[in-house]
Amino acid sequence: MSCVSLREAMRPFYVGVDVGGTNIKLGLVDDAGRVLAQGKIPTREETGPADAVMRIDRAVRALLAEHGVSFDDVRAVGLGTPGPMDIPRGLVLELPNLPHWTRFPIRDELQRVCGKPVAFNNDANAAAFGEFWVGSGRGGDSMILLTLGTGVGGGVIVNGRLVEGVHSFGSECGHILIDSSPTARYCVWGGGQGQLEAYASASAVVARAEEQLDAGAVSSLQSRRQSEPLTALMIAEAAAAGDPFAQEIVRETARYLGIAIVTLVHVIDPGHVVLGGAMNFGGAGTPLGRQFLADVRTEFGRRCYETVLDTRIEFALLGGDAGFIGAAGLARQAVS
Amino acid sequence: MSCVSLREAMRPFYVGVDVGGTNIKLGLVDDAGRVLAQGKIPTREETGPADAVMRIDRAVRALLAEHGVSFDDVRAVGLGTPGPMDIPRGLVLELPNLPHWTRFPIRDELQRVCGKPVAFNNDANAAAFGEFWVGSGRGGDSMILLTLGTGVGGGVIVNGRLVEGVHSFGSECGHILIDSSPTARYCVWGGGQGQLEAYASASAVVARAEEQLDAGAVSSLQSRRQSEPLTALMIAEAAAAGDPFAQEIVRETARYLGIAIVTLVHVIDPGHVVLGGAMNFGGAGTPLGRQFLADVRTEFGRRCYETVLDTRIEFALLGGDAGFIGAAGLARQAVS
Repeated sequence: MSCVSLREAMRPFYVGVDVGGTNIKLGLVDDAGRVLAQGKIPTREETGPADAVMRIDRAVRALLAEHGVSFDDVRAVGLGTPGPMDIPRGLVLELPNLPHWTRFPIRDELQRVCGKPVAFNNDANAAAFGEFWVGSGRGGDSMILLTLGTGVGGGVIVNGRLVEGVHSFGSECGHILIDSSPTARYCVWGGGQGQLEAYASASAVVARAEEQLDAGAVSSLQSRRQSEPLTALMIAEAAAAGDPFAQEIVRETARYLGIAIVTLVHVIDPGHVVLGGAMNFGGAGTPLGRQFLADVRTEFGRRCYETVLDTRIEFALLGGDAGFIGAAGLARQAVS
Repeated sequence: MSCVSLREAMRPFYVGVDVGGTNIKLGLVDDAGRVLAQGKIPTREETGPADAVMRIDRAVRALLAEHGVSFDDVRAVGLGTPGPMDIPRGLVLELPNLPHWTRFPIRDELQRVCGKPVAFNNDANAAAFGEFWVGSGRGGDSMILLTLGTGVGGGVIVNGRLVEGVHSFGSECGHILIDSSPTARYCVWGGGQGQLEAYASASAVVARAEEQLDAGAVSSLQSRRQSEPLTALMIAEAAAAGDPFAQEIVRETARYLGIAIVTLVHVIDPGHVVLGGAMNFGGAGTPLGRQFLADVRTEFGRRCYETVLDTRIEFALLGGDAGFIGAAGLARQAVS
């Protein structure tokens, strides 16, 4: 993420808001996608979305005041929320993590309260747009982001535009099928059989490891999981420490991702695929993360058509800020 | 396909050209996508692409003269060819069925000879655009076409634009993975393992049937294939006549397609998926074809997210004319 001082910043500015289950991140972004200021407030799901909209507006104004920025310099606001949603109508629908927010016209309400045009999109789409605008995908025309977290999210950008879908269900890359056999895995929290999310999310990585550990696999994780619940981070730590069982879990995860990326690239051919989210096995800064990425590329290269072999597969660059930066970028695109 | 008289036709007109391995189809299409006139000439691969371009130009002029249309009324020309290709540069690359056409700048050459702007695209993409413009997808914003022939082709349209890809390899829906296991099938003419084309193309349908017949499956096809090579049409005929083995081959094919469509819809969410190509088991006009389509829908509905359950899955309407009509439509889009 690139930061900028008010003096060097390019006007107009955009505000990006990224609503999560626990926190709402917000940031002030300049016309070149550089972050001038950022903050966060608690989501407080139980107080409902109208209250959240009021608190977002106050937090944005406080952030601007703190940094000496006039609200007049803000051209538009971008808002990302978890799905399901109706993007054209600006509605959140039945959000599993935000039950009090059901069927709320959040885009129009924020627009009314803050008095600026509001661009509304899915949080994963917004993160993809952030990476596309000023992160790993900078300078390209098209890009796919896969977000590896508790689930697997995604964002597909074709010729500079997000694939939103006619039911606001486009870009749901975690739900592509990578195994159609009757023995394929199910997502740990329900959902379809054989989908990428059932193999390459943090929850799936833990579930896959636990099944094998229950069946007696030899691993340092056997004793550790006696005292605390197994997590993807513990598996990453064990793999980094040389545990062969944990290393194979990481390798398998890379293979599943490589398979999914072949399918995505043969449909979209974006030239660039970016892996984001917290479950990156240490990311580009660690040997394990680099090996993970190399294994994803190997599986992709083994299965893809030669024509698309030079497709770049890389880690995301913006971390947890991609969502609000991308939301700001979508606001900018909407008013351009 | 909708035809129109010169008197009722809306100007300007567009010419569409669809290059195949055996024939080149061409047609004159009005501004509303209605066909005024059409014809075809042999491809004569061995005489090379420069000769084909000259013959295309002559055939187009003869067709116009025959129907009393001035070349001045033609605004632009659309050209679809088999891939691989470089769409932005207007090149055909190494075409398996057209070896003498390697790396030829066909778009610019046709433009030079005929003196009109030429829009260039993949033949399957052009067919998808035809169905989108005036066929099964008419009136929508997005659509996916799967073309079931010797192979499986595809075209993906998002917000009115084809997904061409940065290597001109977008929309290659026949190459998405539907089985990632080590025992997955290979395409009969090589290519990747586990791809849709290895399961749901005419070649794959024949290969799947032959394997089971070789293993002793009971079917009326056993005696028939003693005297002639097995074809997908023979399998369709046997299924229509009540042969349980052939019927199961058709049902399996529908299931594979349903699996692929789940993946495609979860990425694109187009609201509409169209099945084109000759291998449609009789299509909408026969009980077998209707059952095939129903089985595709059932498999899709069993695996897709509820949000996209109302996605329409239908047969294509334009038949073998979709390619030249779509090429004309792409010419129209390019100059609009």
